[in-house]
Amino acid sequence: MNKQLHIVKVGGHLVNDTAALQHVLAAFAQLDAPKILVHGGGRHATALALQLGITPKMVDGRRITDADMLEVAVMSYAGISNKKIVAQLQEHNVNAIGLSGADGNAIEAVKRPVMELDYGFVGDVVDVNSTLFTSLLETGLIPVLCAITHNKKGQLLNTNADTIAAEIAKALSSAYNVTLFYCFEHAGVLHNVEDPNSIMGTLTQSQMDTYIKQDIIHKGMIPKLHNGFDALKNGVKKVVISNTVALSDTNAPKTTLI
Amino acid sequence: MNKQLHIVKVGGHLVNDTAALQHVLAAFAQLDAPKILVHGGGRHATALALQLGITPKMVDGRRITDADMLEVAVMSYAGISNKKIVAQLQEHNVNAIGLSGADGNAIEAVKRPVMELDYGFVGDVVDVNSTLFTSLLETGLIPVLCAITHNKKGQLLNTNADTIAAEIAKALSSAYNVTLFYCFEHAGVLHNVEDPNSIMGTLTQSQMDTYIKQDIIHKGMIPKLHNGFDALKNGVKKVVISNTVALSDTNAPKTTLI
Repeated sequence: MNKQLHIVKVGGHLVNDTAALQHVLAAFAQLDAPKILVHGGGRHATALALQLGITPKMVDGRRITDADMLEVAVMSYAGISNKKIVAQLQEHNVNAIGLSGADGNAIEAVKRPVMELDYGFVGDVVDVNSTLFTSLLETGLIPVLCAITHNKKGQLLNTNADTIAAEIAKALSSAYNVTLFYCFEHAGVLHNVEDPNSIMGTLTQSQMDTYIKQDIIHKGMIPKLHNGFDALKNGVKKVVISNTVALSDTNAPKTTLI
Repeated sequence: MNKQLHIVKVGGHLVNDTAALQHVLAAFAQLDAPKILVHGGGRHATALALQLGITPKMVDGRRITDADMLEVAVMSYAGISNKKIVAQLQEHNVNAIGLSGADGNAIEAVKRPVMELDYGFVGDVVDVNSTLFTSLLETGLIPVLCAITHNKKGQLLNTNADTIAAEIAKALSSAYNVTLFYCFEHAGVLHNVEDPNSIMGTLTQSQMDTYIKQDIIHKGMIPKLHNGFDALKNGVKKVVISNTVALSDTNAPKTTLI
């Protein structure tokens, strides 16, 4: 029987809040190894860009990663966020090792093809180096991934952290029983965004489709759920969406994709 | 008999020059594995600090790393410089893995004690995790170190890259026959800084002491040489100071510490 593996993705909202991050990392430290942490970037990169006089480019409400924004994202995600998280986990005696997709060729991506829109230096994942992850995990290291990938031709790329978590989960699902945990600010997917107690205990893909049509599920939750169901259909044993509390308390409210 | 291991340290001057960096990385890619690259940071961090309105603090000609400068150093060294180098090495089919001292607890340091001067968040190396390096090297990974360490209590620290290279070289000298290569802009240590051909072919520690008194050797070269002789006295087989040419051409001019 395969070993259990927890893959926890924490959003940029939690990464940029010092107290919230401490709670997440303390809870992550308590989880049994093997485990992998994937973190978003978020507002630090935007704030850094503005400080540097770089205006984040948006087209049709979508963020465009030009060369300047890519540099900012690499400094923010792979630099300060990743290293702060790793140093704090080391304090908790978790032997964390920070990785971008370039490190150890962990995650290879291709620059998103230009169709109606040129997203710039945004990468779509094409390959996860499961041998690298297995090898690091077997020597007791705990990979901590930021949302930067590369194309194996020297180009770094910005990639969605939810997607990175799902792709790693899928790639490792033949070697491990993988639980993928999307950790964000709410206790789960909400029936009513105004009511934090209206948590969906379980969610099927057809329910999701209905809720999207009814505008009950919207915005950033939609790609997260698509990633989650994609993982579930591709060998991942369990996909959970909840907050830090559910990381350490198995009885805490949460949404489980089924 | 122990395996050969090359440890190459490249200075910030080379890291910040796109064409020079490409030459260094192409030469490094040609070296037989196992090998380790250590890189300085340098001017990118200073430029970034100035862009962010942070004035680098100097006391008695020494750089002070306050909290803001540490954040800039982490973004610059562990972020953009390290990841660009790793991505370019991956293009050369070198399976590089970027590390700060926090990653895998690679290099533990202590904040330099405040004596006459408070250097701020500057770390003096106390331990190199040779098990980690050996384990990564044995799985075919090529560690690429930036000049950031940690204190195992959650604090990142700024550490001299020459020292990091020497400390790793010393720590791995019982498992490998280590050659430590300080790669900088000149072909070696010069008798006359105005004459690039006045290279010292070899240099002993007592010659160094004399040349320092005569002001023939000065500035940044002094700590580099101290690190080099320290490595040589502590098990490292060979310490060479030269430029990129000597990395790929064994007959090229260079200074060998003896």
